[in-house]
Amino acid sequence: MSAIEDRLAALEQEVQSLRDQAAIQQLILGYGPLVDTATTPDRARKVAELWTQHGTYDVGGMRLFAGREELSELCGEPHFQQAAQGICHVMGAPVVTVTGDEAVALNYSCVFCHDGDGDFFAWRVSANRWDIVRHEGRWKVARRVNRPMNGNPDALSLLRQIDVIAG
Amino acid sequence: MSAIEDRLAALEQEVQSLRDQAAIQQLILGYGPLVDTATTPDRARKVAELWTQHGTYDVGGMRLFAGREELSELCGEPHFQQAAQGICHVMGAPVVTVTGDEAVALNYSCVFCHDGDGDFFAWRVSANRWDIVRHEGRWKVARRVNRPMNGNPDALSLLRQIDVIAG
Amino acid sequence: MSAIEDRLAALEQEVQSLRDQAAIQQLILGYGPLVDTATTPDRARKVAELWTQHGTYDVGGMRLFAGREELSELCGEPHFQQAAQGICHVMGAPVVTVTGDEAVALNYSCVFCHDGDGDFFAWRVSANRWDIVRHEGRWKVARRVNRPMNGNPDALSLLRQIDVIAG
Repeated sequence: MSAIEDRLAALEQEVQSLRDQAAIQQLILGYGPLVDTATTPDRARKVAELWTQHGTYDVGGMRLFAGREELSELCGEPHFQQAAQGICHVMGAPVVTVTGDEAVALNYSCVFCHDGDGDFFAWRVSANRWDIVRHEGRWKVARRVNRPMNGNPDALSLLRQIDVIAG
Repeated sequence: MSAIEDRLAALEQEVQSLRDQAAIQQLILGYGPLVDTATTPDRARKVAELWTQHGTYDVGGMRLFAGREELSELCGEPHFQQAAQGICHVMGAPVVTVTGDEAVALNYSCVFCHDGDGDFFAWRVSANRWDIVRHEGRWKVARRVNRPMNGNPDALSLLRQIDVIAG
Repeated sequence: MSAIEDRLAALEQEVQSLRDQAAIQQLILGYGPLVDTATTPDRARKVAELWTQHGTYDVGGMRLFAGREELSELCGEPHFQQAAQGICHVMGAPVVTVTGDEAVALNYSCVFCHDGDGDFFAWRVSANRWDIVRHEGRWKVARRVNRPMNGNPDALSLLRQIDVIAG
């Protein structure tokens, strides 16, 4: 019986790990549709709720948003106008590593804007590092750092985290 | 023994759920290579077979394709010519929610075209909602709605489905 | 008891299959951050180590790199300069099929460059086929073929592999 118990326990741990990895991917991928539909303060609040209460988002070339109150300002008047003209945050599929109740993920994000004629252009192509924690059974973003891939050495420094994630 | 039975049953259900989520992601990601290699009526038929017999595809700014016969026309002469010049449908990784034999997924799609010189441009950047059903053990698309992210309010309305998916 | 053994064995096999599929996706997605941070010969070596000792990378319009020595040259002086100006290899999420210790994957890759002003342009949009093998418990690339989606019939021929992968 103990052999069966051991195999069950090993499976439970592996399935939990796969489920966590999938949940974190879904959290990150969901940022795109959430931010692109944030056309009102109420919906801006939904974006902020991806973060923990005191979570931070350091947006390269813009500012640091600390805590949900500030994160709700991420999508304010300028963003509402962009949304009406056509803006699209495409999240690249992330590389993720989970350790218990903490996870680190790296991904690229491409923000496309409509040029008003019919084509789209890549306005921002960035590297992102996500520090994600399990809080009351749900994964929330504790810290996100975003750096545009415009030759900024900070972007490369952030991406070197891949050495740890990819093992 | 019943404790072991219970743990086995719980694992089987969780593994099924992970497998379904993975299968649906693969189905959506596979659309790109299938449509981009649809250079003959025979291969156009393969694209249509991603859908159920009476499945629909509502392409924003184009038309509604209803049923596999019409879906086979999705890739006709204009598409055959585009394929020869260089066209690439990049499917963004989807957010997926599965409930039994039904699933809903959201993703962005970017269609890149070759400009004839050497660079590529983003011709269409769209939001997609996929309603997918399990039919005879295989996942098939029952309904896909595509809306370009050009400020079209329909695109945002479609993307607000994220509230339900991301829970 | 044998019924329980059978269910356990089936679960173990399915979980292994899901874990393999996830590991291969992570391997391919990790190529982007690894290549984009390859700003020194040491880091160029890390990219080469994604491949088996005698692995190959056939880059459309460039050359064939055979074995880790040559693969280390993939990121040389021209690449070091590009990295300093802003270059970003975004790997599309792959379609993957695993058979024991071998796997085949297809994905699109988009290489964005910074235009020096503030926007980005898609320099290369390519189809990729990855032949991946399990070597001493780790997945390594045995062969990667890359073809730009510029109307090159080779790209479409490579992508038709989707018929086998998508079953």
